Amino acid sequence: MSKIKNVPDQTRKGEDLGLDRNAEKGRQRTINRDGSYNIERKTGRLFGNFYLYHWLITTSWKNYWLVVLLFYAGMNVIFATIYFLVGVEQLNGIHEGNWFTQWMYCFFFSAQSYTTVGYGGIHPVGETANFIAVTEAFIGLMTFAIATGTLYGRFSKPVSRIKYSPEILIAPYKEGHGLMFMVANELQSSLVEMEARVNISWSDVDASGRPVRRFQQVKLEIDKIAMFPTSWVINHPIDEESAFFGKTPDELKALEAEIFILLKGFDDVFSQTIYSRHSYTMDQLIWGARFRRPFFVNEKGKTVLDLTRVGEYDKL
Amino acid sequence: MSKIKNVPDQTRKGEDLGLDRNAEKGRQRTINRDGSYNIERKTGRLFGNFYLYHWLITTSWKNYWLVVLLFYAGMNVIFATIYFLVGVEQLNGIHEGNWFTQWMYCFFFSAQSYTTVGYGGIHPVGETANFIAVTEAFIGLMTFAIATGTLYGRFSKPVSRIKYSPEILIAPYKEGHGLMFMVANELQSSLVEMEARVNISWSDVDASGRPVRRFQQVKLEIDKIAMFPTSWVINHPIDEESAFFGKTPDELKALEAEIFILLKGFDDVFSQTIYSRHSYTMDQLIWGARFRRPFFVNEKGKTVLDLTRVGEYDKL
Amino acid sequence: MSKIKNVPDQTRKGEDLGLDRNAEKGRQRTINRDGSYNIERKTGRLFGNFYLYHWLITTSWKNYWLVVLLFYAGMNVIFATIYFLVGVEQLNGIHEGNWFTQWMYCFFFSAQSYTTVGYGGIHPVGETANFIAVTEAFIGLMTFAIATGTLYGRFSKPVSRIKYSPEILIAPYKEGHGLMFMVANELQSSLVEMEARVNISWSDVDASGRPVRRFQQVKLEIDKIAMFPTSWVINHPIDEESAFFGKTPDELKALEAEIFILLKGFDDVFSQTIYSRHSYTMDQLIWGARFRRPFFVNEKGKTVLDLTRVGEYDKL
Amino acid sequence: MSKIKNVPDQTRKGEDLGLDRNAEKGRQRTINRDGSYNIERKTGRLFGNFYLYHWLITTSWKNYWLVVLLFYAGMNVIFATIYFLVGVEQLNGIHEGNWFTQWMYCFFFSAQSYTTVGYGGIHPVGETANFIAVTEAFIGLMTFAIATGTLYGRFSKPVSRIKYSPEILIAPYKEGHGLMFMVANELQSSLVEMEARVNISWSDVDASGRPVRRFQQVKLEIDKIAMFPTSWVINHPIDEESAFFGKTPDELKALEAEIFILLKGFDDVFSQTIYSRHSYTMDQLIWGARFRRPFFVNEKGKTVLDLTRVGEYDKL
Repeated sequence: MSKIKNVPDQTRKGEDLGLDRNAEKGRQRTINRDGSYNIERKTGRLFGNFYLYHWLITTSWKNYWLVVLLFYAGMNVIFATIYFLVGVEQLNGIHEGNWFTQWMYCFFFSAQSYTTVGYGGIHPVGETANFIAVTEAFIGLMTFAIATGTLYGRFSKPVSRIKYSPEILIAPYKEGHGLMFMVANELQSSLVEMEARVNISWSDVDASGRPVRRFQQVKLEIDKIAMFPTSWVINHPIDEESAFFGKTPDELKALEAEIFILLKGFDDVFSQTIYSRHSYTMDQLIWGARFRRPFFVNEKGKTVLDLTRVGEYDKL
Repeated sequence: MSKIKNVPDQTRKGEDLGLDRNAEKGRQRTINRDGSYNIERKTGRLFGNFYLYHWLITTSWKNYWLVVLLFYAGMNVIFATIYFLVGVEQLNGIHEGNWFTQWMYCFFFSAQSYTTVGYGGIHPVGETANFIAVTEAFIGLMTFAIATGTLYGRFSKPVSRIKYSPEILIAPYKEGHGLMFMVANELQSSLVEMEARVNISWSDVDASGRPVRRFQQVKLEIDKIAMFPTSWVINHPIDEESAFFGKTPDELKALEAEIFILLKGFDDVFSQTIYSRHSYTMDQLIWGARFRRPFFVNEKGKTVLDLTRVGEYDKL
Repeated sequence: MSKIKNVPDQTRKGEDLGLDRNAEKGRQRTINRDGSYNIERKTGRLFGNFYLYHWLITTSWKNYWLVVLLFYAGMNVIFATIYFLVGVEQLNGIHEGNWFTQWMYCFFFSAQSYTTVGYGGIHPVGETANFIAVTEAFIGLMTFAIATGTLYGRFSKPVSRIKYSPEILIAPYKEGHGLMFMVANELQSSLVEMEARVNISWSDVDASGRPVRRFQQVKLEIDKIAMFPTSWVINHPIDEESAFFGKTPDELKALEAEIFILLKGFDDVFSQTIYSRHSYTMDQLIWGARFRRPFFVNEKGKTVLDLTRVGEYDKL
Repeated sequence: MSKIKNVPDQTRKGEDLGLDRNAEKGRQRTINRDGSYNIERKTGRLFGNFYLYHWLITTSWKNYWLVVLLFYAGMNVIFATIYFLVGVEQLNGIHEGNWFTQWMYCFFFSAQSYTTVGYGGIHPVGETANFIAVTEAFIGLMTFAIATGTLYGRFSKPVSRIKYSPEILIAPYKEGHGLMFMVANELQSSLVEMEARVNISWSDVDASGRPVRRFQQVKLEIDKIAMFPTSWVINHPIDEESAFFGKTPDELKALEAEIFILLKGFDDVFSQTIYSRHSYTMDQLIWGARFRRPFFVNEKGKTVLDLTRVGEYDKL
């Protein structure tokens, strides 16, 4: 089935992607279009691959607030119950009422201690309650450090919002063709020292006829730019060394070819290295087209990058 | 118009800058003299390229304080109104007065809860008010984490204050000439492993007579220094490979030549990589001059770097 | 005794490990199986190699909490005693009782000031007590910054949980053999740009017959992968240049051969470089086996990495 | 005077150090023995090279605490005066007394607001005082973020405590000699990927007889080690390319030769790059000696690095 000859050296380079070369039918893509790995991790242990800090930083906002609020409520329920069991007479300012009302005011006192707001409307008078209260204030300060730290960590997490052209083009380049896609920085943050690495993969059969998946890291016309103010067309010239050389669009579709991209840059405002991953499949391939420039010079002579036009192209 | 012959290889390298090669008349420079990109971003979405954390860190101090104070005031207006609607009888210590006075004291109580100062002069007695108060203290702690975190982020943002010579010189170098500018570290912080990259650009016409902009990354005599205690003269020897080779000052001006600089270093006190960008235009070019040393040895034998003299030169 | 000929060039490379080449009998391994250095540091000074921040971040949780709680308690004992000596009449709200009861309430007041909870049930009225209280609140805020900072530092410490295959295999590779082990990322965090470096060491005798330890950094089939979604078999082809070339399992055991691994990667969620160290000894060596794939495609077509199966192999 | 012939290529490399080549008599060294730059910065502007964050992190502890305490006291003096001017009747709980006593209690109330301890013994009742109090609490939270942040920044500042041998040796190496010094990591923190760069400098006269300073980056036997568990002897083989080739100890002293070292490593616990600088002058040079091993294997077979013995040598 494969029309690409088995090129051991290129295949070895392809393994550099850390991806599996076996190709079952109906297999999902291993890298999602948003760049994340489409891999499930199974572990023998409960919480075997769970790392709380990572989870708190990367989970959804809904999950995050749910966990933080449940923890806050839970801690206060525990301390409220302790104060209640110690005896409400050890707390000054607790309202009269049935046991539930009294427990409620223990809860309020607990939360006032936990957040260190400490109005004093309710305050401990007995020794045991006093001792518990200073312990709770300590625990409150320590655990809020985790809550506020992770909140800020989520808030300040380095993001790269690289816009990729929706399609990937095969355009004339020199005497032959080039495989081209366009990227642009959506944020005003200034990226410098951008690097691109592109891998392609396709289906093949091995010597024994078993279907396998082959990989190749491809050469780029330019794989590094010093500054990235506007947009960048990344171009893989399809020469004899390229696995895509001499292929027709239908052949590439039959080969279930896929293109993996890893971009790296440095955000010089935040002094951080930024990565961006992306992949294209063959239904995003346009044969014989050329990207339009997504920027123009306005009446004041200023260059304007129109992000809505990143990826616009002209059929040739 | 162009007297620089079309050098494809160099032009390709020039694209490394990620800059546009088209050259409209009256176009503004793409890199400002302070190193920032002079690019406007247009996006289809509202807040399409807005990233709150980046904005809070990089906006002006005026904007920053405006936003933080408005948020603080706004949150307290909201909570004050809630307490007021719940009923002032649920708060002990609210002054007698008309509804506005009472709302004002709700506002004060809210701010005392929000900042966790909690004097207790006013304190919640009703269950609803108590519940809202512990919620507000929680929200206060969490949102102040963003406010104090971004304040500290702004305060501790890695800065590089590299002083560039106001002029760029063409000075005799070996048998020919060199294009030279001087840089010095304005801060006492010690930079190590400095690297420089210099690109030049000029106007040209392409095969079809359309005006284009050409780029070339130029060779430097020394592009890396291990330590950077005083000053550094960065020298591009203008040999046959340089696009500036054989040009007169007037020719360079006619070509609207521009020089882009990217400096990189490592601040070994803060363990951070630092970048600095700069550019020169042709009205800053001095022909036939040589930089003076901006440092001297004082009476105690200590080397003194005089930053006010960085860029001083002698006409030859 | 050594059957590996003395290869000066390789030995020099081996010194790259920074390990000692002398080989006493009964010597412990210098790198533990968990990757830490098994080295004791002796210093002439008391606390000569002690660095408090490092210690607070890397010590056990038990030690950490012990120190933090003792410090919190100790500070409050000191301030309680100061308030007590200043005189309890300077504090409003102190309970009647013997001196110990009064000291206890001084302690509670101190803790309420230190944590800034400040209920006000007890509050300073005298000038001296007021002055000490505002000093204590200041000290409390500053020292809690250290406590909460180190707590968060421990919590957010970059971890790499790389799973290594329990055994290291010698498997057929091309015309000869390869030394192979398998690694997988236990966490969902996505590592990119993985690099591996492998060194081997063995016992030998030098020209004068003294036992020495030799080292060699070995060549790998692939020493870099761009992405690391599943698992990676790291393979050292045992060719003529390898110190293990032509050795039998018994010979390797007699040579007390050891394999040191250094993995490096970049966690692109946290923008941090991650290192992992590991080592294998000869009782973990399996001759003539091949690793099974630790992942499979489930019914939905999704790739599942089964971490419990990392390192499973088939005898050949 | 110079017996080292003028080697332009080496000299150019030497400029990589970013050091001055002019050599006045009685000049102080440009790099102190502790690695810091011995350079004074002069600037035309007041605070021209002052960067508050850098200063707060790098100044002495005495200066740091002085500034932080003065700021804390100063802010409270300002707010105390404002409350006093607004009128003490707006504060509940102010003691009777003369104006100074009343101002004192305004000061205590201010500090209770600033630290958010807010006992409530004194609390605002008037609207103006209430408004000022919530403003002060806000300012307190924001400015304490700077104080606690810089305190933690100082506390957690990456340190490298590399111990250098007090002397630098010229020892037999192969057929010739090597210039050798020893380094060891004083801390238990594990450094990996160590790199060394060594530059030498010496006095010379240029073509016109003016005294100049020459530099050369010298070749090292090994300039990179993967791990750094014990000690490392860094060796510059003095071959024909070395500026020190064929020199006697007296000649080197006459040339005022100096040796500059830049070490770089990665602390894999804190995920930080660490630099260390050092320099040797000729009065630290020992001719014909060899370093002793500073580590030994104790009775349990464990390797012990004795930091007090780093740099011990045997005369040959």
